[in-house]
Amino acid sequence: KVIWTVLVTILGYASSLPVGDSICTAEELAKYRIIFIGKWSQTAFPKQYPLYRPPAQWSSLLGVTHSSDYNMWKKNEYASNGVRDFAEKGEAWVLMKEIEEAGEKIQSVHGIFSAPAISSGTGQTSTELEVHPRHPLVSFVVRIVPSPDWFVGIDSLNLCEGDHWMDDVSVDLFPYDAGTDSGFTFSSPNFATIPQETVKEITCSSPSHPANSFYYPKLKILPPIAQVKMVKLKKSQLGLSAPYINLPAKSNEIIDSVS
Amino acid sequence: KVIWTVLVTILGYASSLPVGDSICTAEELAKYRIIFIGKWSQTAFPKQYPLYRPPAQWSSLLGVTHSSDYNMWKKNEYASNGVRDFAEKGEAWVLMKEIEEAGEKIQSVHGIFSAPAISSGTGQTSTELEVHPRHPLVSFVVRIVPSPDWFVGIDSLNLCEGDHWMDDVSVDLFPYDAGTDSGFTFSSPNFATIPQETVKEITCSSPSHPANSFYYPKLKILPPIAQVKMVKLKKSQLGLSAPYINLPAKSNEIIDSVS
Repeated sequence: KVIWTVLVTILGYASSLPVGDSICTAEELAKYRIIFIGKWSQTAFPKQYPLYRPPAQWSSLLGVTHSSDYNMWKKNEYASNGVRDFAEKGEAWVLMKEIEEAGEKIQSVHGIFSAPAISSGTGQTSTELEVHPRHPLVSFVVRIVPSPDWFVGIDSLNLCEGDHWMDDVSVDLFPYDAGTDSGFTFSSPNFATIPQETVKEITCSSPSHPANSFYYPKLKILPPIAQVKMVKLKKSQLGLSAPYINLPAKSNEIIDSVS
Repeated sequence: KVIWTVLVTILGYASSLPVGDSICTAEELAKYRIIFIGKWSQTAFPKQYPLYRPPAQWSSLLGVTHSSDYNMWKKNEYASNGVRDFAEKGEAWVLMKEIEEAGEKIQSVHGIFSAPAISSGTGQTSTELEVHPRHPLVSFVVRIVPSPDWFVGIDSLNLCEGDHWMDDVSVDLFPYDAGTDSGFTFSSPNFATIPQETVKEITCSSPSHPANSFYYPKLKILPPIAQVKMVKLKKSQLGLSAPYINLPAKSNEIIDSVS
């Protein structure tokens, strides 16, 4: 009887471990400042660069910390209704509900975070996020505005390395097509893709059509359209009167590196 | 020497108390879910209701929990540069820097929070915030899009009632003019107000000019253009795998009450 109970416990425990991930044995909680830097300048992306109604800009950032049992979005898989709403319209509600349900039903979510929109193609926004050894993965999306259903983001970046949390991470971001709207250019009118296609990276050669806004046949790869940095906060930066916020200066150094 | 030290300590403590507020002796930290509900429908606000490029919508929500030593914005006072950028363009960076500086210099800020934008005039967004006995006040802003420099928000709402935290609060919201752009209608072109004016509530009779988008001479008061609810989270709703999120359904009940 006792042995049986132990066995069930072990099996139960094993089945709750992230599948395909190394086990995270880092300390309980870690907080990070996440900084999103738009690099969508007219210099870097001259083709059809949106100048008005609306000019090039970025939506709110919506993100989640989670286990490998949840995916906010995934390359070559179908976008959820929530990701479709967000990628097409910047509407976050359905996606927030999806995340909440994943948190309730399969306990695969630790927390949700968001950062304010950026009113130009090159600018910054920031917020804080928290990870836990059982929920060490970070995913987020930011809509490219204007666009049919294009976004940038990260899918399941693991901030845990075995027994410790990474100090800082920086990732270049490239555009994705949510597969739900067939528009070809930034300002294409709405035109639903039926049947829905999977999420695809947009490159300088794919979709392979001269009308596409990111089609640059002379380039080998697109320049990064955005960048994200995550920096682990020290304990002394947390809590009472050492508030969540620790923003870098909007220095020329950062802005100049855009183009 | 000892007496002197004690006296300095008492004075130092007294000077850090919120001026003009009752002292908050509630337990250390409280977390709230904040839900912002847009009620800007064409039925309730038929005049010049923005239908495209862009249609009526709400920016990201940017908020802060703080002591009475900080004001994010205040009726009849001048808007800061950060509030001007946010009210005119939805650009949050300068305002986030201002909040951070207030947190560093005078320890008047506990935390910053933001919620995603809403892509229509009637919709909802939500996030979580944390208050502390020394930082029991909540302020936030949401830009009215499109508009010259109009916003809704709350200034220094105290969630502490003596020895306990309020369970829930609901506040109707009405439009404000940041005093930095002289546009008269939702889609007025940019036209800086020089010299800058103070933040003013917009009512159905003020500004008293028929061209103004909110001028409804037959009404006594405008219907609320938005509503905010704050609900205290139970301990069991906090922490590990009981994530921050606890969103209400986007029910017809809520939406129908809009018009």
